[in-house]
Amino acid sequence: MHDATEAARAQRARAELVTEQVLESFAGCPDERLKTLMRALTRHLHAFAREVVLTEAEWEAAIAFLRACGDVTTDARQEFVLLSDVLGLSTQTVCLGDPAEGDATEATVLGPFFAEDAPRIPFGGDLSLGASGEPCLVTGTVSDTLGRPVPGAGIEVWEADADGFYDVQYGDGRTAARGRLRTEEDGSYRFWAVTPTPYPIPHDGPVGRLLQATGRSPMRASHLHFMVTAPGHHRLVTHVFVEGDAFLASDAVFGVRPGLVRTFTRHPAGTPAPGGRVPSGTWTDVAFDIVLSLA
Amino acid sequence: MHDATEAARAQRARAELVTEQVLESFAGCPDERLKTLMRALTRHLHAFAREVVLTEAEWEAAIAFLRACGDVTTDARQEFVLLSDVLGLSTQTVCLGDPAEGDATEATVLGPFFAEDAPRIPFGGDLSLGASGEPCLVTGTVSDTLGRPVPGAGIEVWEADADGFYDVQYGDGRTAARGRLRTEEDGSYRFWAVTPTPYPIPHDGPVGRLLQATGRSPMRASHLHFMVTAPGHHRLVTHVFVEGDAFLASDAVFGVRPGLVRTFTRHPAGTPAPGGRVPSGTWTDVAFDIVLSLA
Repeated sequence: MHDATEAARAQRARAELVTEQVLESFAGCPDERLKTLMRALTRHLHAFAREVVLTEAEWEAAIAFLRACGDVTTDARQEFVLLSDVLGLSTQTVCLGDPAEGDATEATVLGPFFAEDAPRIPFGGDLSLGASGEPCLVTGTVSDTLGRPVPGAGIEVWEADADGFYDVQYGDGRTAARGRLRTEEDGSYRFWAVTPTPYPIPHDGPVGRLLQATGRSPMRASHLHFMVTAPGHHRLVTHVFVEGDAFLASDAVFGVRPGLVRTFTRHPAGTPAPGGRVPSGTWTDVAFDIVLSLA
Repeated sequence: MHDATEAARAQRARAELVTEQVLESFAGCPDERLKTLMRALTRHLHAFAREVVLTEAEWEAAIAFLRACGDVTTDARQEFVLLSDVLGLSTQTVCLGDPAEGDATEATVLGPFFAEDAPRIPFGGDLSLGASGEPCLVTGTVSDTLGRPVPGAGIEVWEADADGFYDVQYGDGRTAARGRLRTEEDGSYRFWAVTPTPYPIPHDGPVGRLLQATGRSPMRASHLHFMVTAPGHHRLVTHVFVEGDAFLASDAVFGVRPGLVRTFTRHPAGTPAPGGRVPSGTWTDVAFDIVLSLA
């Protein structure tokens, strides 16, 4: 006869047995790390399915979603990266790799818009290279967790223009709002960029539809990307964020860390800037001191 | 000063904070079920990453893997389905949807090769339709969990030919090794098919490379697919497996259930079969009685 409790127990036992069979199937994996990863992934994925009692219709929707992500993916449009970003998995991974030693500057996501071979600019130079936006003077130092300046540290900076686009999205091969420089003997650096503004992650694909269906915004809080390298120190990939930005609490990729938010001060048109430049319109400046952890 | 324990604690706290932020981001999701699914997925994915201390290189490899799955996916080649299959997630989902009442026949995976509008065949008819393979006579009954025969139940059957291919893989639009019939007034059914043989899932893509890297076989245990429907009963999607098959314990998609394995008896060439047919070579027969749960 029909017995609902017994049926539920049988169903649960069968479901758990499937998980055991999958874990066992990896017993012969010759790579111990891969075995660990695949077994952990299996346990967590199956636990998810059991917890929510995943239906076949939901499973089909998930398969169709992944296929749609594949359909829009190109070198310039990395939908699986976006998916990982909006699920916070990218930031989670960054956190796990961040040494988090003492007062070292926190890491955050690399994002899909870094490019090799950015133009080299001198101390005080301008990396905007024609990108639209308000001029922004960025100054700071690079030091280590013992407080010692790091001379000759490599700094790569990249950002979106005032229209929300990175140069790699222009589609014409131009380089703009991107550059690299080195710290001076005292660890200091200075460059002109454009004042960062909020922009949406690409949201005309399946990940954008997921954000919409879940009531989430595709907007990223305004930021400048930094990658800082120096021999004997951990490579740091981070952002500086703009104090008062409307999206600090709802950054689409969970990249904001309170310790990375700085005041961008706006100056009236005609105000001379350190170094002698007099921008024709308003401009901002920000100080961003960076602390590297020792490798 | 550097303090490894404190740094590890800080790192862990930051990582857990990221998870909390992602969970909070779904607070405004207007669809309660979608909210539940996205939050549970987030918790389990992040727990996986923290447990294994996922590295950025591993994250990059995972992104590249998903992209490669997208690259080979077409209507006829469903790599994300294969991925779910070899991780046992498909079978896990099937188990969760299977009522598992009393002695009802267990469900197993649908697979990617079902097709609508299979040819209708009479009692005792042959659905091999020219597919390569040894003739196999399949007989049985469909009844309910109270032991009552189910007359007029719809049975759809499909299988790979002796070369390991389903008709939809032929690429020429032919129908073979596929058909549908109805049970008689006493719930019985009978049809000719070909004796199922083991075959590999498509393994020339990223999922195949994953199986190889993890030391797993792409082979499926020999089986015939069944889909059985009758008003007032749960739809049953299942297989019948071949006793003694070499891959029963290592089925690539974890579809085997002990209760679905049956003896296929081989008869010498020239032996007359029930119904009067005398196959020119050897042939097999199998009895597969099916029990449906009440809806």
